[in-house]
Amino acid sequence: MHDDRGADPELDKREVLHGRHPGDRYTRVTHDVRFQRVGPGHLSVTRRAEEPKTTWGRIRQALLGLPIETAREIHERLTKGKALAIFGSDNISSTAYATEEIMRILLLGGIAAIATWTLPLTIAVVLVLVIVVTSYQQTIRAYPKGASAYIVASKELGRMPGLTAAASLLNDYVLTVSVSIAAGVAALGSLAPIFYEHRVLTGVLLIILMAMGNLRGIRESGSIFSAPTYVYILSIFGLLGYGIALYLTNALPAYTQPPQWIEEWQEEGGQALGLLLILRAFASGSVGLSGTKAISDGVPAFKSPEDRNARITLLWMAGIFGTIFLGISFLTERLHIIPDPDEAETLLSQLARTLVGTGPFYLLVQVSTAMLLVLAANTAFADFPRLSYFLARDSYMPHQFSHRGDRLAFSTGIVALAVAAALLLIAFSGSVTALIPLYTLGVFTAFTLSQAGMVAHWWRQRGSGWRWKLGVNGTGCTITAVVALVVAVTKFAAGEPLFEVGGFNIHAGSWMVMVMVPLLILMLIAIRKHYDSAKTELVAETPLHPSGVRHSIIVPVASLNRPALQSLAYARSISPNVTAVHIAEGPEEAQAFRRLWEKTHTEYGRLVVIDSPYRSLVTPLLAYIDAVDRQDPDDLVTVVLPEFVPKHWWERLLHNQTAFRLKAALLFRPGTVVTNVPYHLRR
Amino acid sequence: MHDDRGADPELDKREVLHGRHPGDRYTRVTHDVRFQRVGPGHLSVTRRAEEPKTTWGRIRQALLGLPIETAREIHERLTKGKALAIFGSDNISSTAYATEEIMRILLLGGIAAIATWTLPLTIAVVLVLVIVVTSYQQTIRAYPKGASAYIVASKELGRMPGLTAAASLLNDYVLTVSVSIAAGVAALGSLAPIFYEHRVLTGVLLIILMAMGNLRGIRESGSIFSAPTYVYILSIFGLLGYGIALYLTNALPAYTQPPQWIEEWQEEGGQALGLLLILRAFASGSVGLSGTKAISDGVPAFKSPEDRNARITLLWMAGIFGTIFLGISFLTERLHIIPDPDEAETLLSQLARTLVGTGPFYLLVQVSTAMLLVLAANTAFADFPRLSYFLARDSYMPHQFSHRGDRLAFSTGIVALAVAAALLLIAFSGSVTALIPLYTLGVFTAFTLSQAGMVAHWWRQRGSGWRWKLGVNGTGCTITAVVALVVAVTKFAAGEPLFEVGGFNIHAGSWMVMVMVPLLILMLIAIRKHYDSAKTELVAETPLHPSGVRHSIIVPVASLNRPALQSLAYARSISPNVTAVHIAEGPEEAQAFRRLWEKTHTEYGRLVVIDSPYRSLVTPLLAYIDAVDRQDPDDLVTVVLPEFVPKHWWERLLHNQTAFRLKAALLFRPGTVVTNVPYHLRR
Repeated sequence: MHDDRGADPELDKREVLHGRHPGDRYTRVTHDVRFQRVGPGHLSVTRRAEEPKTTWGRIRQALLGLPIETAREIHERLTKGKALAIFGSDNISSTAYATEEIMRILLLGGIAAIATWTLPLTIAVVLVLVIVVTSYQQTIRAYPKGASAYIVASKELGRMPGLTAAASLLNDYVLTVSVSIAAGVAALGSLAPIFYEHRVLTGVLLIILMAMGNLRGIRESGSIFSAPTYVYILSIFGLLGYGIALYLTNALPAYTQPPQWIEEWQEEGGQALGLLLILRAFASGSVGLSGTKAISDGVPAFKSPEDRNARITLLWMAGIFGTIFLGISFLTERLHIIPDPDEAETLLSQLARTLVGTGPFYLLVQVSTAMLLVLAANTAFADFPRLSYFLARDSYMPHQFSHRGDRLAFSTGIVALAVAAALLLIAFSGSVTALIPLYTLGVFTAFTLSQAGMVAHWWRQRGSGWRWKLGVNGTGCTITAVVALVVAVTKFAAGEPLFEVGGFNIHAGSWMVMVMVPLLILMLIAIRKHYDSAKTELVAETPLHPSGVRHSIIVPVASLNRPALQSLAYARSISPNVTAVHIAEGPEEAQAFRRLWEKTHTEYGRLVVIDSPYRSLVTPLLAYIDAVDRQDPDDLVTVVLPEFVPKHWWERLLHNQTAFRLKAALLFRPGTVVTNVPYHLRR
Repeated sequence: MHDDRGADPELDKREVLHGRHPGDRYTRVTHDVRFQRVGPGHLSVTRRAEEPKTTWGRIRQALLGLPIETAREIHERLTKGKALAIFGSDNISSTAYATEEIMRILLLGGIAAIATWTLPLTIAVVLVLVIVVTSYQQTIRAYPKGASAYIVASKELGRMPGLTAAASLLNDYVLTVSVSIAAGVAALGSLAPIFYEHRVLTGVLLIILMAMGNLRGIRESGSIFSAPTYVYILSIFGLLGYGIALYLTNALPAYTQPPQWIEEWQEEGGQALGLLLILRAFASGSVGLSGTKAISDGVPAFKSPEDRNARITLLWMAGIFGTIFLGISFLTERLHIIPDPDEAETLLSQLARTLVGTGPFYLLVQVSTAMLLVLAANTAFADFPRLSYFLARDSYMPHQFSHRGDRLAFSTGIVALAVAAALLLIAFSGSVTALIPLYTLGVFTAFTLSQAGMVAHWWRQRGSGWRWKLGVNGTGCTITAVVALVVAVTKFAAGEPLFEVGGFNIHAGSWMVMVMVPLLILMLIAIRKHYDSAKTELVAETPLHPSGVRHSIIVPVASLNRPALQSLAYARSISPNVTAVHIAEGPEEAQAFRRLWEKTHTEYGRLVVIDSPYRSLVTPLLAYIDAVDRQDPDDLVTVVLPEFVPKHWWERLLHNQTAFRLKAALLFRPGTVVTNVPYHLRR
């Protein structure tokens, strides 16, 4: 500094200060209702401080609810019943379409293929589920604080397998939302065509609604989202029970396959019923399994004992899924129902209609199916933010993802998922058929890596019965790896044509996942690398020392109005070394400005006027700051800028343009401090 | 201030300062190649300072050219020849479609209507042009510095008529760009279908190209854009001359109206050939007149004597337009050519093909027409920014619009026009038919107001021959008012259906202009109102005085890393009254932080730790700043924030999130200064 202040010892000054303000300065703040005094120099914020002050804040709080204290986190945990609804809805809802997806592929090999293969493939899928669930029972027991594939694979296999699992899951969660919402909107569309006409808009609105529900926090969203799951389970169990009873009493009604459907299928089909087609049908059916990941990823959201509750819920979910899936496949096959080639009616709707007619019970089945399909997206809203939290905690994702919002939900993750899923939905025009081939590969990759991790775990640990445990996880690993491979191959380019390159139509398919996942991994690694290097740079001694700072202050001044004088006064109060810089429009203006300055304002410092023959404002200022900095490299340059703050946001566009560009440019100059002195326009 | 610095007299300190830095501090800067010393405390920027430093800056300069000194503005003015090409292209290019537009409406009243009415309506439009041009000769003479309808109407009739003219013109210029580009792309499309397939993209790219050309400055864009105008004029004159020669020698070739066209027109037609239809046809033809505004708005861009050159150019333009328009209407009528009901071929193309066959001359006519239609948009690029400049100068538009860029062009206006026109083009899917009904009304409104202004002018002035002059402008005013009315009524909802409301199809049409223009006027007035009130607030004495400032400095500190310590050191160098505020994650973290602080960092000031049970970061900080401010209202609170500056832009997303939100919130607190201490991450 340029004055003699540096000569006084630090301590004396602080005594002077405290002499002027007797008592503990900062405990006086506790007279404020927004703070509570905890101890000396230690305050705590009260609920009063969190009260919204703006209209927008009040709307936000009305929509999302009052903020919840961190200490209440434990009360926000999920009971098994709610967890089944939240984490199980993805899995259970897929029974609504799994049988149909199998049949649609089989029909390409001829109408007879359904009768032979539908039930065996259903049983195969359920068997895979049994193996996966058994394997995950062990995983959850070993990782009671969160058995996400990312955690297990990172810990047991290393960084790259962990990140591969994480990227696959992130990808898959986004697809879960898009696919479920698209399927739900399609179901709504067959009830009321207006939803079909505006299916992208409807989908996006549903995603927004769902994100808002989740921003309210998991427990409340559990309450909102539980009902449809149970209504669906009960109504389908009723339907299937009734159907089985009819079957056992040989009273099944007759179903006539519409002849024009048979014709259409025969036209579309004509492929040989080879292994590849059967595997493809199996891959389509295994879409239903993708929901299984949800519970293992969501273990920390369960009430204590988390792991036990999670394992029991997982068994319930698998049981319900398997029963419904087998029941639907069995009954449709017995009734010889075939899917509508034009996709106007779902297989489940045909089954219900054949069994109970189009009365109120049929309507209940249809409506609860549509609602559940939409709500299946909610599973991803519960898990994606949690996975992001794990990744952010390990610095693989931006740290914002690790903060819990007002309502204890991971707000950033919820918003990010909603945005990504909405964009995907828009890009694919809300079509389920277009999105489906991208699905499933990610989750089976994650399954495989997680279970491979468990195999490594048992191999290293070799506790009691390790061979058996290794065998269980090993079987799971092998089976899911095979499924992943089948999905990757049979759905490589099975989707809609996207674009043409040199005469070839490029179709959507699992190849897109194989491109996206590595890109995601690179992004995660780049973020981690940045945080790592920033961290090592940040832990070091300060380069500045209070007594060593010599200020050189530059105040750009366009005209000698009130905001400019305020900035000059502020600058002058920091240091006497103040330079006002004026960029002149021309020589006359330059002289006029200097005359005005010398008449009245010399007390603030010296004036430098710069002519700018090329009319630029920012360039000369930057060059001047640079020149001053070179001239006295030991001085610390502070640029003091007046900032107009108008009453309305749009009025900001009318001011500060030059200041804003100057600030943006100064950002890239090391060691220049920028101070904004606000000037509030009152009218 | 809390130290003893305030006790020293101001003068002494500056002497101390100058003692430490002998010589004139700021003239030393002139050793820098980027500055020239003009006088004591007066510098001028050299070309060296304007050299681009970033890759982006270099690309920009390569595209837009080197900056031009303000003093060279006079050399950038336009000769009559270039001005005719720039300001006349809009008007002259409309001869390519004006006859066809008249015929298309007439045909709705039966095939015979063409023969009777095409030529009379053409003559009517040309007559209106003669009246308008005569009237404008007087306007330009009276307003040699710019005869824009905005200026004339403001000065002679008052604020509201002036703003109405301005808003109408702004609106019309945007439409000029969209319509001309769409028409040009359509012409390109009939040469190569790929342009038709991607017509919106092609249109947007052309707008970008045109904006770039104009950012290079008017003279150079004159050179770029002159050629096609003259090629068009010459080739059409050649074509028409040849046609007239054939007619005079009774050697006109035979043209057979395709029978299926006649049928189609008969099906489409069937309306009574009443007055309304004839007026509608006239309104369609008068689209061609809209280009007339350009020269009067652009007077200041002419070489001196501006007004004389502008008047001569206006006469030339009108002569060329009238000759071509009459020639095309005459020859097509003589040959009995009818427009293609499917719009696959233009009338002009049919005429050229009939007269000269499909040889190279035909191709020349087609290509130059397409190019000229695209370049007609350039008229708007020359005039919209100039009108914006006039409005910005009068504070009706943001002041940025009044700055000339590097190349002496009004950059903001050019960019704003390009963005608006591109959005309009996208919204209307690049269709000329959809855009046309919105066109023309604005420009005739402006014509009427401008000439009404001139009537008032002569009435007040009553110089020599004022009765005659008033008569001329009065006739112009009446005629253009009638045309405006005809356009408003006949095109009220003549466009494409836009959307449905309660069973009614809402069509595009002039009603949209009647909605847009008042909205624009309201915006202009709101901007002016804001600047007016800001101005009165700014001219006043400073509320702060250097010696009166008592600092209270708050430094939010998340962890005691290098950037935080740097901010603390900076804060401490301004004042000893520094409070570090730490928002704790929980009680343990709070205690750990305090222990660390007390061990090593007490020299920087005092520490306040705030627990935040609702996990918010910004809310407690704001509440604390507020509490401190209330406690000592006389202190000036400065918040010092460390700002991370990573090497790559994307890395910014990983830092500063809290600082950014805090800054945004502090903006709305009067009287809080925000200082950013940058911390550059080097890796």
